[in-house]
Amino acid sequence: MIKIEGGVCAAKGFTANGVHCGLRKNQTKRDLSLIVSDREASAAAVYTQNLVKGAPLFVTKAHLEDGKARAVICNSGNANTCNANGIEIAEGMCALVEKYTGIPQNDVVVASTGVIGQPLSLEPIASGMESLVKGLGDHNDFAAEGIMTTDTVKKEAAVSFTLGGKKCRMGGIAKGSGMIHPNMATMLVFITCDAAIAPSLLQKALCEDIKDTFNMISVDGDTSTNDMVTVLCNGAAENPVIETENEDYAIFCEALNTVTTSLCQAIAKDGEGASKGLTCKVTGAVDKENARIIAKSVICSNLFKAAMFGSDANWGRVLCAIGYSGAKLDVNKVDVSFVSDKGSILVCQNGAGVDFSEEKAKEILLEKDITIDITLKDGDASAVAWGCDLTYDYVRINGDYRS
Amino acid sequence: MIKIEGGVCAAKGFTANGVHCGLRKNQTKRDLSLIVSDREASAAAVYTQNLVKGAPLFVTKAHLEDGKARAVICNSGNANTCNANGIEIAEGMCALVEKYTGIPQNDVVVASTGVIGQPLSLEPIASGMESLVKGLGDHNDFAAEGIMTTDTVKKEAAVSFTLGGKKCRMGGIAKGSGMIHPNMATMLVFITCDAAIAPSLLQKALCEDIKDTFNMISVDGDTSTNDMVTVLCNGAAENPVIETENEDYAIFCEALNTVTTSLCQAIAKDGEGASKGLTCKVTGAVDKENARIIAKSVICSNLFKAAMFGSDANWGRVLCAIGYSGAKLDVNKVDVSFVSDKGSILVCQNGAGVDFSEEKAKEILLEKDITIDITLKDGDASAVAWGCDLTYDYVRINGDYRS
Repeated sequence: MIKIEGGVCAAKGFTANGVHCGLRKNQTKRDLSLIVSDREASAAAVYTQNLVKGAPLFVTKAHLEDGKARAVICNSGNANTCNANGIEIAEGMCALVEKYTGIPQNDVVVASTGVIGQPLSLEPIASGMESLVKGLGDHNDFAAEGIMTTDTVKKEAAVSFTLGGKKCRMGGIAKGSGMIHPNMATMLVFITCDAAIAPSLLQKALCEDIKDTFNMISVDGDTSTNDMVTVLCNGAAENPVIETENEDYAIFCEALNTVTTSLCQAIAKDGEGASKGLTCKVTGAVDKENARIIAKSVICSNLFKAAMFGSDANWGRVLCAIGYSGAKLDVNKVDVSFVSDKGSILVCQNGAGVDFSEEKAKEILLEKDITIDITLKDGDASAVAWGCDLTYDYVRINGDYRS
Repeated sequence: MIKIEGGVCAAKGFTANGVHCGLRKNQTKRDLSLIVSDREASAAAVYTQNLVKGAPLFVTKAHLEDGKARAVICNSGNANTCNANGIEIAEGMCALVEKYTGIPQNDVVVASTGVIGQPLSLEPIASGMESLVKGLGDHNDFAAEGIMTTDTVKKEAAVSFTLGGKKCRMGGIAKGSGMIHPNMATMLVFITCDAAIAPSLLQKALCEDIKDTFNMISVDGDTSTNDMVTVLCNGAAENPVIETENEDYAIFCEALNTVTTSLCQAIAKDGEGASKGLTCKVTGAVDKENARIIAKSVICSNLFKAAMFGSDANWGRVLCAIGYSGAKLDVNKVDVSFVSDKGSILVCQNGAGVDFSEEKAKEILLEKDITIDITLKDGDASAVAWGCDLTYDYVRINGDYRS
């Protein structure tokens, strides 16, 4: 598993582009992206569990019923959600892809991100299609930029790996900064791969993977209406098609996990207003589910996140969040340590405070990447969750989002 | 039901006091409170559902097993939670009450609030007891101040009502500003009443009441380790003892609801860093439980709370929070209005946006008390939840709490 460059263009047979079509006021900001495979690809997706769903999700779901797709179109600046004509607009975006590329509209994945509940006009999108399609090429950066909203950095990851003697590549881009609290899947994540794999196994691999990746991030506890993760595998690498859960499948899953974990960390660290990336590692839980619940509860606590912003070793808030998580555990056996590049410090042992150097703790917590190590001594299961601190900037950004 | 002054001293036979004993550095801040009944009282309590519980809760629970109590002692500045000798210290506080008042220590309710996981010393408490007891009187204000932590205002409420021809009084004080997200009960709330009521009925009345009051507040989604609501009824009003669910019981419950609702609103509005009080009213739900889930989900959403801070009519975030609440509803029938002293404005009808004046919306949302009216058209059930906006000050206060 080798990390490589190229994002969604790393895999053979995939091109991408992103342009400014006018959905966003800032004319220097791309707001429309397209990813295209030169041949049919196996496709899988997972969607937000929010009852209020963006119209594009319904259209994408219908288009992926046959497990096949060839293109992804996505706009930012408007979520196309809670609009009376949302389905019509989402279908219109797919029809535009067919018109300009020849790819049948039911082979198109469509997504939108931005403000909820404001009518989305097809006009700017139609006007941008020609340059969008004309410029298709090795432009992962443009595509990554076109799906960004309040994101401050582009998020991409890619790996190369070998299946049946053939070199394969998998890469993805992600958008996500606020409304990050997945339940099955969240954010917009587009992954491309040139390996050959049956659609049903691709879907299975994705569903398994997100339990430990995209379902373990939280920025603000708000599950978005529009988010999905899609993977397209076009088989351009000419590996033997993966049709059973064999060794190749295991390697494929590992590649997927490497890409998704990397995107998860990038999303969490770029959480709206974040000044620090937080990783919560739970070990010694009675089972995986309880480990996940605890890791998520800590990473979601506003109080804990504000303490991390202040570099305050306030471990009582970690214990508090563990206590109300609803997980099964013996609170009298919990150990807590804070870890960063500056070292590690034990602050709580067997559920009670221990003497520790506040100076050393401060030095550790002033770093940009903090890990909270929680040891439960109840069993062998573990889990990791990713998040960020709660800052003044989170409030500023979200106090005035629509303008 | 007439609103009166006096808080916990409004009811006959109750006195209170609060002093600075040295647990808090600020010498002008009272940090130790005592409430005393001149006779035995029926007592009931509900406690936090956090698995990590403050030691005082275990001691109080044991002391209330017989449904009787005569005094409440509470310190601020230290939560006496996650300490090896916490139970011993909590029992020590009750023993001090016995030593200075003669009230048996197992008739004492004990509570602590403040930082978690720092040893609590009995010494300052012991040194403050003499002046605390000597000053017992009509000092509701002192008692209310002694239980405050990051609260910016004292919270009290009281009513008078009539049972069997006898005038009764009920009043309470509350502490709560951060870590407010009740599950069964939260915060510190002490209510006194001079009505006579059997302990079992008192407990029942309290358990029913909190479902619509203290369980419907959220400041930050963090359920505290230490919080409880207790009610003491000493019968000094000489009404016929309430021993069945008769008319008097109904009146008693109404009095309780008036006091608790008032304290709830005060707590929500004084949420850490809050600049606005938010009330979320849900009507037309399929049942009460679903109405409550939706009201809580909206009042808990960081994104929505930040929008309210910015006076931004971002109703998409209301729909989003309804959608991920887990409640049963038809999202295509939801109406949303924002209401304040400046008027009311419909912003979403049948799950989709409607044209509205942004100017008018801004005028409404710039007020200090905002109501979010959600109409579901799925049934007849309703619920109300209380909260506050998410502000820079919330982050400032919690980024540096311990120092």
